[in-house]
Amino acid sequence: MRICRVSLDDDLHYGVIEGDAVALLSSHPFGPFEPDGRVLPLADARLVAPVLPSKIVAVGKNFLDHVREMGGDTPPAEPMVFLKPSTAVIGPGDPVLLPWQSEQVEHESEIAVVIGRMCRDVPEDRVDEVVLGYTCANDVTARDLQRTDGQWGRAKGFDSFCPLGPWIETSLDVEEATIECSVNGEVRQSGVGADMVRSVPELVAWISSVMTLLPGDVILTGTPAGVGPLTAGDEVSVTIGGIGTLTNPVVDRG
Amino acid sequence: MRICRVSLDDDLHYGVIEGDAVALLSSHPFGPFEPDGRVLPLADARLVAPVLPSKIVAVGKNFLDHVREMGGDTPPAEPMVFLKPSTAVIGPGDPVLLPWQSEQVEHESEIAVVIGRMCRDVPEDRVDEVVLGYTCANDVTARDLQRTDGQWGRAKGFDSFCPLGPWIETSLDVEEATIECSVNGEVRQSGVGADMVRSVPELVAWISSVMTLLPGDVILTGTPAGVGPLTAGDEVSVTIGGIGTLTNPVVDRG
Repeated sequence: MRICRVSLDDDLHYGVIEGDAVALLSSHPFGPFEPDGRVLPLADARLVAPVLPSKIVAVGKNFLDHVREMGGDTPPAEPMVFLKPSTAVIGPGDPVLLPWQSEQVEHESEIAVVIGRMCRDVPEDRVDEVVLGYTCANDVTARDLQRTDGQWGRAKGFDSFCPLGPWIETSLDVEEATIECSVNGEVRQSGVGADMVRSVPELVAWISSVMTLLPGDVILTGTPAGVGPLTAGDEVSVTIGGIGTLTNPVVDRG
Repeated sequence: MRICRVSLDDDLHYGVIEGDAVALLSSHPFGPFEPDGRVLPLADARLVAPVLPSKIVAVGKNFLDHVREMGGDTPPAEPMVFLKPSTAVIGPGDPVLLPWQSEQVEHESEIAVVIGRMCRDVPEDRVDEVVLGYTCANDVTARDLQRTDGQWGRAKGFDSFCPLGPWIETSLDVEEATIECSVNGEVRQSGVGADMVRSVPELVAWISSVMTLLPGDVILTGTPAGVGPLTAGDEVSVTIGGIGTLTNPVVDRG
């Protein structure tokens, strides 16, 4: 099932995509839900980020080829986690804004896990029960500031640095899922979920042993090799096999 | 004026403290507000964290004496910012939970800035207009994990690692404000706002040039020297001159 969020009549509504239509829901999808009777053509629906998380927990260095391209040779002994602010979230089609503070803003295509219910200390074999689904994410990063700042709160935290979408796919074989990023139609990153150093069950179990996860919280599972620069005028797309494609234009913030 | 949040009849209410009483408000304090007519004795009010932020932006290494005790000699060239999750927030009297993952959990007393309205790119001389007030914070840190993890998402992000309270003081001379931490009545940290490497106006201007700040967002402004361990059975208090004292017991999470 594909769950989206739609902007309609100055309000936001969750919906379920069925073929080329969106059936709007009478509530959020973090519990029992049902259609409210309204149906829109998907082509006419203005999709926004499928969720507004209370927190975004991102995992660094979770693909060995990316660890190597960043100058390392082994992944960290424990997952390396950092937070991105919810104010960084944008949806499909929204512009990634290049800030004046950085001269090297880069794309990082990732599978995003969307948490479905409040949880804490989740065992690996029960992670399925707390995951609502998966969406595409771009962990946009000011690479120059990431190198100099020490902590990544600024480099990863600018407004618009967390595109999410276009929808949440509730059923995904993560191991088999391809993770691709293209800029202006040219493929820059290409990986597969099976190459994660730590799998989704391992990550959710580990993170939930530290902090309570709430419905709608998002976990970014790391990026494969091939990260590279974005410049004004580019169009950047993250495609996850089995989910779809998240595309954003890139513009100067001015 | 002192603004608090009170748990009453299974609901949370904002209130204004007047002498030894709390006048409950009919709305949140991030806009025009008025009393709803109910008044409680302060001694009977169960105070909770005075705000639940959408994000907590913390500033590392903002006191030179603390930079030195951590083995450095100069503050970073730019503010070093990181995020703490909202799930870490607890209120006055709530227990700080020692997680099994760490053997060295430490206190860090700080002045917390509470943002009053949505803002972005705030000039230093207009920061007053976007600040609702100030409260006491304890930026609890798993020091051993902070050293080994690289990014501080885990070391600073455990549930209960962000005590806030007891109330928001809307009028504070930050430069003059003393910042103290005591454990079981013994003073461990003692500093003053004037010793911040970067002042509150500088920090709010800098952070708001990166990310939009929302009503209720919290900025932790750094800790003076004297950080040290917490063990089960301790009682830790952060006292900010002009605000008050935030006290929390320390217990094993078990």
